[in-house]
Amino acid sequence: MTAPQLSGRLYGIGLGPGDPELLTVKAVRLIQAAQVVGYFAKAGRRGNARGIADRWMTGNAEELPLSYPMTTEHAFDSPVYVSILAAFYETAAATIAAHLDAGRNVALLSEGDPLFYGSFMHLFMRLRSRYPVTLVPGVTGMAGCWAAAAEPMTWGDDTLLVMPGTLPLAGLIERLRATDAAVIMKLGRNFGKVRIAVQAAGLLPRAVYVERGTMENQIVMPLAEKMDDNAPYFSLILIPGQGRRP
Amino acid sequence: MTAPQLSGRLYGIGLGPGDPELLTVKAVRLIQAAQVVGYFAKAGRRGNARGIADRWMTGNAEELPLSYPMTTEHAFDSPVYVSILAAFYETAAATIAAHLDAGRNVALLSEGDPLFYGSFMHLFMRLRSRYPVTLVPGVTGMAGCWAAAAEPMTWGDDTLLVMPGTLPLAGLIERLRATDAAVIMKLGRNFGKVRIAVQAAGLLPRAVYVERGTMENQIVMPLAEKMDDNAPYFSLILIPGQGRRP
Repeated sequence: MTAPQLSGRLYGIGLGPGDPELLTVKAVRLIQAAQVVGYFAKAGRRGNARGIADRWMTGNAEELPLSYPMTTEHAFDSPVYVSILAAFYETAAATIAAHLDAGRNVALLSEGDPLFYGSFMHLFMRLRSRYPVTLVPGVTGMAGCWAAAAEPMTWGDDTLLVMPGTLPLAGLIERLRATDAAVIMKLGRNFGKVRIAVQAAGLLPRAVYVERGTMENQIVMPLAEKMDDNAPYFSLILIPGQGRRP
Repeated sequence: MTAPQLSGRLYGIGLGPGDPELLTVKAVRLIQAAQVVGYFAKAGRRGNARGIADRWMTGNAEELPLSYPMTTEHAFDSPVYVSILAAFYETAAATIAAHLDAGRNVALLSEGDPLFYGSFMHLFMRLRSRYPVTLVPGVTGMAGCWAAAAEPMTWGDDTLLVMPGTLPLAGLIERLRATDAAVIMKLGRNFGKVRIAVQAAGLLPRAVYVERGTMENQIVMPLAEKMDDNAPYFSLILIPGQGRRP
């Protein structure tokens, strides 16, 4: 008879905003100790998470790319695509569970912070009741961007609102008027609408556009000076607060 | 004739939420390379920042404690105290400027992230036009707390509102009703009022209280189960979002 095998532990690892030196000491240690390192990527691509972690990979771990299902036929929020995504997360969770059942520790990489708009959360919710999990918070993408822009974001009793550019125009304007500081994410094809909302709320003079903050080729500019509506995945708009400053 | 002396560089270093392993690799490297390491503290105390950084101090740097003026006679937001604080920041900036003028690099430690409700910002605004500055973002206290609570905070198109408990009751309730996820900070003597606001907004079942997240002796509990109104400096309330989950 052999002793019952102990299951492995799942690690949800925040990688920070992009600069490889902005991983935490704990993230580096746990990535280097894991038997399996998983990361999300588009099919056929290495993915941003794997790229950020590259400097810290020892070459000893088994790599587990989790490739998002590719579809151009369905909108991201269509019921069909949501069910395709759900099936993908189920399969990914089962793959990770098999490693954990075999006693292997799995480090799952997450850009930014793992519990802040992270794909990691979908696997965490499917695995947390069955396996031990350690969560390693990371520097968020937005913190990387306001550091890149050298913009103090919140002072004293400022409120900060983080919101996606997917909200309707009226909702964006209303929310911008009700907060002291704001971060607007998920720009992409919402960029033109977001720009109108910022202007309508009277915030254009304070608004800063940041692309790929802390990464090579980062771009920082006043939103008012941005002449096109192109905004890739790693971009956001900052409205710094103006609160109490002794 | 000697060549003109180059001034030193100011580093604004985020220390993360409290666990010494949650400093970034970059923060550790720059702390260990600095000739002067500055940090805020209450008079006569070592201070939280210095404590978090302790593991990484080499002993070779000159330490520069910046001791907050102590006063029990004036409320934190009274005009007298604001002017006392302003004088303190002026003096601290002048002290740092003297080191920079002498060519010494100064690393200024900041709990959490340096540009997110950080005292560092007051010195940064006074020095940024005269000296080169490098900003190192950090894991925020709130990210440490939601990791400690194992609570995914924001999903899909969730909005997140960060706000201080100092707001009036009606303002707290109104803002809580208008957001998907929330973080309420600066609890202290506002705790009872904040609890009423969370309950009035119908959010008590989702609310989590976290104290000293990622630090030794951290406390995590449902807000509904907290039986007293004591909430120290390092505490906050989380309202996790409930957005799109394929």
